[in-house]
Amino acid sequence: MASTDRVAAAVLIIGDEILSGRTQDTNLRDIAKTFAAHGVDIAEARVVGDIKDEIVGALNHLRARYDYVVTTGGIGPTHDDITADCVAEAFGVALYEHPDILAMMQSRWQGEITPARRRMCRVPEGASLVLNPVNGPPGFQIGNVFVLAGVPQVMRGMLEDVVPRLRSGSVVISRTVRVEGTGEGVIAAPLETVAKAHPDQSLGSYPFFGPDGYGTNLVVRGRDGAQVEATVSELLAALQGVGVTGIKPAEEG
Amino acid sequence: MASTDRVAAAVLIIGDEILSGRTQDTNLRDIAKTFAAHGVDIAEARVVGDIKDEIVGALNHLRARYDYVVTTGGIGPTHDDITADCVAEAFGVALYEHPDILAMMQSRWQGEITPARRRMCRVPEGASLVLNPVNGPPGFQIGNVFVLAGVPQVMRGMLEDVVPRLRSGSVVISRTVRVEGTGEGVIAAPLETVAKAHPDQSLGSYPFFGPDGYGTNLVVRGRDGAQVEATVSELLAALQGVGVTGIKPAEEG
Repeated sequence: MASTDRVAAAVLIIGDEILSGRTQDTNLRDIAKTFAAHGVDIAEARVVGDIKDEIVGALNHLRARYDYVVTTGGIGPTHDDITADCVAEAFGVALYEHPDILAMMQSRWQGEITPARRRMCRVPEGASLVLNPVNGPPGFQIGNVFVLAGVPQVMRGMLEDVVPRLRSGSVVISRTVRVEGTGEGVIAAPLETVAKAHPDQSLGSYPFFGPDGYGTNLVVRGRDGAQVEATVSELLAALQGVGVTGIKPAEEG
Repeated sequence: MASTDRVAAAVLIIGDEILSGRTQDTNLRDIAKTFAAHGVDIAEARVVGDIKDEIVGALNHLRARYDYVVTTGGIGPTHDDITADCVAEAFGVALYEHPDILAMMQSRWQGEITPARRRMCRVPEGASLVLNPVNGPPGFQIGNVFVLAGVPQVMRGMLEDVVPRLRSGSVVISRTVRVEGTGEGVIAAPLETVAKAHPDQSLGSYPFFGPDGYGTNLVVRGRDGAQVEATVSELLAALQGVGVTGIKPAEEG
């Protein structure tokens, strides 16, 4: 059984290419969805560049504040890949060449270990490896911090070895009510009334508009499935009570 | 003429829906690209939930540290839209109903201003409006902070009224060299040599792999176009010097 407390995590995205706009990050969303299914909420995310003090500072702040931190990016072989160095500095430990990674590299490259590849064998003292089922060297875990690759396919692969290590919180149940043809200006009042009656649940409102029309998605989230369903019913009644039409049946998500 | 100094900005993304993984943020990338074209670097980004203390704390930290801050999200009419309240609190000023927004609303809704819509008329004392050419009420600027919508189409529209207000830095020139069939392990050494010779420029390395093969994108970035081109030539020579093939001509971006 999952516990009923909240387990909270932060994501630290490391890389100049995200801040320059060259690369669209998708890792935050993938981590959030995977962790949510396991009952772990992402409470905060930060994006920092490839700058040692920034990475160390953000990591030390986040790891003290949340149950878990996941970092993505900066674990490759090139000079701008400084995440392992920064994590070691944040924890005040040294890096060492992990024999399993070295053996893996030697087998893969038939002994041809360039100094650059050798950099990827380094993990902080006290870290355990996070399996990389896709390509390249593993990530690692030290304390409550998981250090993962930045390439989305590799990051997602590594998550499979992260999830079993997480303390499971109670999973958030989410229901979306789509309302077509009505904007937030009309919906706000009934929504707020229902939201205030259920402070332990979260009621959000997300407008959409496009070539096919406009409307609002209303999202009810909570950790008790029966309560969420009851709140959805209450919300539907409140919307109908002020004459809102175009309400679609509630869906998961 | 653009100045040669660095102008740095931060992005503060506000919204539970980004942290839950329900919505994929694209605003960071759009802001980064738009600002980069104007010579303003995004130095840091944060994502926080719809929680007053989190928003106020992050905003006060970021606005003290960077030339500009852009916030996205939380300016709609519903109870979870608390960005204007938080910005006012961060600046220690009150909110008031801006007569121009009220007039705009009255014209649009033919006098039917619900209390929820009326919330969107509120801006902090001392703020100026940021035009919304797409749909709904405007954003606003107070001090060095721009408060924009979360819906991407609207956010992009508002950016058009933000850019002319920015102090222009020198624009970063970026060139990408695509190398097919060679991973970072081989490229790292020549790349590092060239990078160390040009500490005023940034040389990054981004591996890719997919159904069509694998390789590495090498990105040279700097504020002096001629120097960037010279570094690209040096990099190409260094790669060829260690026998790397599959090098494509350098491209913008």
